[in-house]
Amino acid sequence: MKALVTGGAGFIGSSLVARLLGRGDNVVVFDNFSSGQPEFLVAHQDNPRFRLIEGDLLNGNAIGEAVKGCEAVFHFAANADLRFGLEAPDRDLKQNILATHNVLEAMRAEGIKRMVFSSTSAVTGESKVIPTPEDLPMPVQMSLYGASKAAAEGFISAYAVGYGMSALIFRFVSITGPHYTHGHVFDFVKALKADPTKLRVLGNGQQRKSYLHVSDCISGILQTFDNGEAEKNEFRTEIFNLGNEGHCYVDQSIGWICNEMGVKPVLEHTGGTRGWIGDNPFLVLDPSKIRALGWRPQYSIEDCIRDTVRWILANPWVLERR
Amino acid sequence: MKALVTGGAGFIGSSLVARLLGRGDNVVVFDNFSSGQPEFLVAHQDNPRFRLIEGDLLNGNAIGEAVKGCEAVFHFAANADLRFGLEAPDRDLKQNILATHNVLEAMRAEGIKRMVFSSTSAVTGESKVIPTPEDLPMPVQMSLYGASKAAAEGFISAYAVGYGMSALIFRFVSITGPHYTHGHVFDFVKALKADPTKLRVLGNGQQRKSYLHVSDCISGILQTFDNGEAEKNEFRTEIFNLGNEGHCYVDQSIGWICNEMGVKPVLEHTGGTRGWIGDNPFLVLDPSKIRALGWRPQYSIEDCIRDTVRWILANPWVLERR
Repeated sequence: MKALVTGGAGFIGSSLVARLLGRGDNVVVFDNFSSGQPEFLVAHQDNPRFRLIEGDLLNGNAIGEAVKGCEAVFHFAANADLRFGLEAPDRDLKQNILATHNVLEAMRAEGIKRMVFSSTSAVTGESKVIPTPEDLPMPVQMSLYGASKAAAEGFISAYAVGYGMSALIFRFVSITGPHYTHGHVFDFVKALKADPTKLRVLGNGQQRKSYLHVSDCISGILQTFDNGEAEKNEFRTEIFNLGNEGHCYVDQSIGWICNEMGVKPVLEHTGGTRGWIGDNPFLVLDPSKIRALGWRPQYSIEDCIRDTVRWILANPWVLERR
Repeated sequence: MKALVTGGAGFIGSSLVARLLGRGDNVVVFDNFSSGQPEFLVAHQDNPRFRLIEGDLLNGNAIGEAVKGCEAVFHFAANADLRFGLEAPDRDLKQNILATHNVLEAMRAEGIKRMVFSSTSAVTGESKVIPTPEDLPMPVQMSLYGASKAAAEGFISAYAVGYGMSALIFRFVSITGPHYTHGHVFDFVKALKADPTKLRVLGNGQQRKSYLHVSDCISGILQTFDNGEAEKNEFRTEIFNLGNEGHCYVDQSIGWICNEMGVKPVLEHTGGTRGWIGDNPFLVLDPSKIRALGWRPQYSIEDCIRDTVRWILANPWVLERR
């Protein structure tokens, strides 16, 4: 297969690229390096099945050229930052909706039928049903990020119905592991490297969150893709939650981070059940649907956090990048 | 109150404008007359509490000027055509998402806190729960129109949470009555005026649909707005279905149309359970939530259809406009 991976220099995208190349697929990466890192792709630069295109998805012509001859598009490029959405209220609109629309239009023009999309648990708002299944009561969106990803999901499925494509949509919990470059583990490691004696924690530390290792994430994506789960659906869209069962508390994950780093800071909680506007104090997806297909994660939530800290400590350059 | 009504020259918008002016409010209409009709506002042109601004919502500066000094925005401007979305796949994106984002940004800049939005039953996709409540299982979008309105709902509620606004979102079934200028009643009346001996019907005629009279629609909107239902919600967004209980079949509604027109055409069904891609063969919203607040429609589904035909026949100029 020849596949296009948008955001292929990013955290999850680059992990997918390595897996696809490793199994013999041809891969075109399209990335604007706004958050992607050249280092994540350097191992592939001499691989004849690998091609890198630096470009911006807001440029419809560029993505139109890039998709030519591909059988599937793994659309992983996005603004993936929920927390700062309110500071730039057109960022999610552009990066997550307009960019997705350009990808869909490029696919339509070239007759490319298979779309895989990285969505997020944030589309579930503040679900009252926890763990939260794919068919939760239609949520009210709580963040521009969640709203933009939900909008992209909607356009992708409407294209699937309207133009005879197929769409696999994955709602991720927080993904962790090698190539992790933003999120709370990153922020905490960075802060503790600067000052290991104290740590400021947004909220009361009792927010309950779920994590999945990027390796397990990619396995889930490729298993359902290879099995043609979207193509089996009447409307040619299938949505899967991808997450570990269960959850941990923010303070618990801080404990694992500090243990890996060998530090014992005083925690300074800012208080409140939410760390910021749009922070979901209890976010756990129900992965039953994909587990019913045989998928099982190999990493526990604790392993996810610890492996991420180890990778950041072994690659301290990432701390300087963002 | 001084209110801005986007799409205030359109079918539902102009009906709202008349009601607001009638009760003493000040009204600014913002409309690009792409589907709005000057005739729908002509009665107000000498009213000192009425102001008309011709402009396009894709021009952020224009709407930014228009909202100044308003206490609430009734955002009713939209591409309201589901059926032809696939012919111009950026129309819903621009008219329903980008336009809504510009309205929200204009409100944010001016500190305007109250938003009322005309959404649609189409956001519910093909719900398996019928009649369909507001908190149906999170649907897969089936049309670009539905996807774009769902996206607008999401951005509006994220703005409400993020910037301290409040949002009333109404999901309409097909609205009917005076000022109706597009939809199946319009198409059928127009076709029967041209040739009363036969009528082409998309699908098998057994699609089940629900209708509401625009007068009942406006009553539901203003009752919940005046009662501050959105402001009572923790997250300051309230979503209400607006529709009659029950449904009729397409062929049944054709019967009422023909009866009003005094014609007896041969029906030529194109066949299939759907009239077009994205046509929902069974679409009925559950209005229990707004009924629990005391709202009751005055027009039955049959009255809705018959009153619409009578209005079109009394205003044949609208048949020439579209």
